[in-house]
Amino acid sequence: MSNEVVTAAMLAIGDELLSGRTKDKNIGHLADILTAVGIDLEEVRIVPDEQDRIVEALNALRARYDYVFTSGGIGPTHDDITADAIAKAFDVPCEHDARAMKIMGDNYAARGIEFTESRQRMARMPRGSEHIANPVSTAPGFHIGNVYVMAGVPSVFQAMLDNVLPTLRVGQQLLSRSVNCPFGEGTIATALRDIQAAHPDTIIGSYPKYENDRFSTELVIRARDKEKLIAAETAVRNMVEGLSASQLGR
Amino acid sequence: MSNEVVTAAMLAIGDELLSGRTKDKNIGHLADILTAVGIDLEEVRIVPDEQDRIVEALNALRARYDYVFTSGGIGPTHDDITADAIAKAFDVPCEHDARAMKIMGDNYAARGIEFTESRQRMARMPRGSEHIANPVSTAPGFHIGNVYVMAGVPSVFQAMLDNVLPTLRVGQQLLSRSVNCPFGEGTIATALRDIQAAHPDTIIGSYPKYENDRFSTELVIRARDKEKLIAAETAVRNMVEGLSASQLGR
Repeated sequence: MSNEVVTAAMLAIGDELLSGRTKDKNIGHLADILTAVGIDLEEVRIVPDEQDRIVEALNALRARYDYVFTSGGIGPTHDDITADAIAKAFDVPCEHDARAMKIMGDNYAARGIEFTESRQRMARMPRGSEHIANPVSTAPGFHIGNVYVMAGVPSVFQAMLDNVLPTLRVGQQLLSRSVNCPFGEGTIATALRDIQAAHPDTIIGSYPKYENDRFSTELVIRARDKEKLIAAETAVRNMVEGLSASQLGR
Repeated sequence: MSNEVVTAAMLAIGDELLSGRTKDKNIGHLADILTAVGIDLEEVRIVPDEQDRIVEALNALRARYDYVFTSGGIGPTHDDITADAIAKAFDVPCEHDARAMKIMGDNYAARGIEFTESRQRMARMPRGSEHIANPVSTAPGFHIGNVYVMAGVPSVFQAMLDNVLPTLRVGQQLLSRSVNCPFGEGTIATALRDIQAAHPDTIIGSYPKYENDRFSTELVIRARDKEKLIAAETAVRNMVEGLSASQLGR
């Protein structure tokens, strides 16, 4: 752990996410995991299975953030074009990786399944890539430069991410505390703004919920310094309790 | 309905989506609804509550697509900065809208709640905006140019979207048919690639599922022309049935 801030972006690839046919589950998972280890996810983009769009988004994101994680488009079918797009973005050839061919060939042979040309497509990666092991279904993901290319199927994405995590540089974790507030944002906004102003090294967020015809709020305090976190959390709790007492008394 | 293609992007705004604290529900909903009415969602971005980042993403998206839909950041608290950011992107002042002040003021008065400065923040919008009615909690969203600014709370986002939909220009709907395939992608990839090549005016997608230690696939055929859709669907179904018969026979 260090004092530095390490940043990341996610690029989710797939027509099915944009048509609504598939509801993404990888963004929220990646966000949870990166937050837990001390990497700040700062941007997400979802783009269709089109090479130019993938290349453009990837180049924008990899130039800006320490890490980029992609999901989707690395299977054996014709619409799986992520490996070619990543190779194009890095201006290197996309070719069958010898070690991936061996791992996958051995696996198919052991299962008595033919290692067809289509299946061999999954061994293609940009020249210079390193593998991301896939304990679920063998065909590896890969990383090249600061880009980590993983499957879209959530169980495979998660398993690949688990293998990537220990290799990443992490920053100082952004700590967070949450305070449930039974009042809507309109009731607390002025007091909360003043608390934020008095605690400049914290980030105080207000997340409204609407249930049973009424609003309540989840107040989230985040900071890299634990003492500052607690000081701001205490101020928020005091504000909410003071308000509850005054509402009870009226 | 027309023959033209109408495109859209979504900009989801909020630190909570990037920290994992909130799992987005609006992207998938917007994708479903736009697909149903014949608007193609072509890109999604998620950015934090930072003015420069919102402005940059919004300007990129609104220049490129027919419509941009945003979610989040229009509440009364200090971290709700979407209205200001949109105004900055359009280079117009962000100011209290007289009609919004009246609607909201009347509503709070009827409920015996003070219309505080914080609550009045929700009546602020870029000069020249038009309202998006909010039947759930009164404070309106707004649209300016081709940008539609809506709440992040899913029930409010959905209600606002319902009010926006009838005002949008729509294109020819992308029709779709789905074929469940009991085989993994490796088994069907070559045949599927040939079907795609023989049906160039359709988009054939392959979506792997992994359950109970085995892969299956959902094959989705999309086209704007119904006859071409059905021809490609028939080819896909014949391929899957032929494969099933040959597997049973061996």
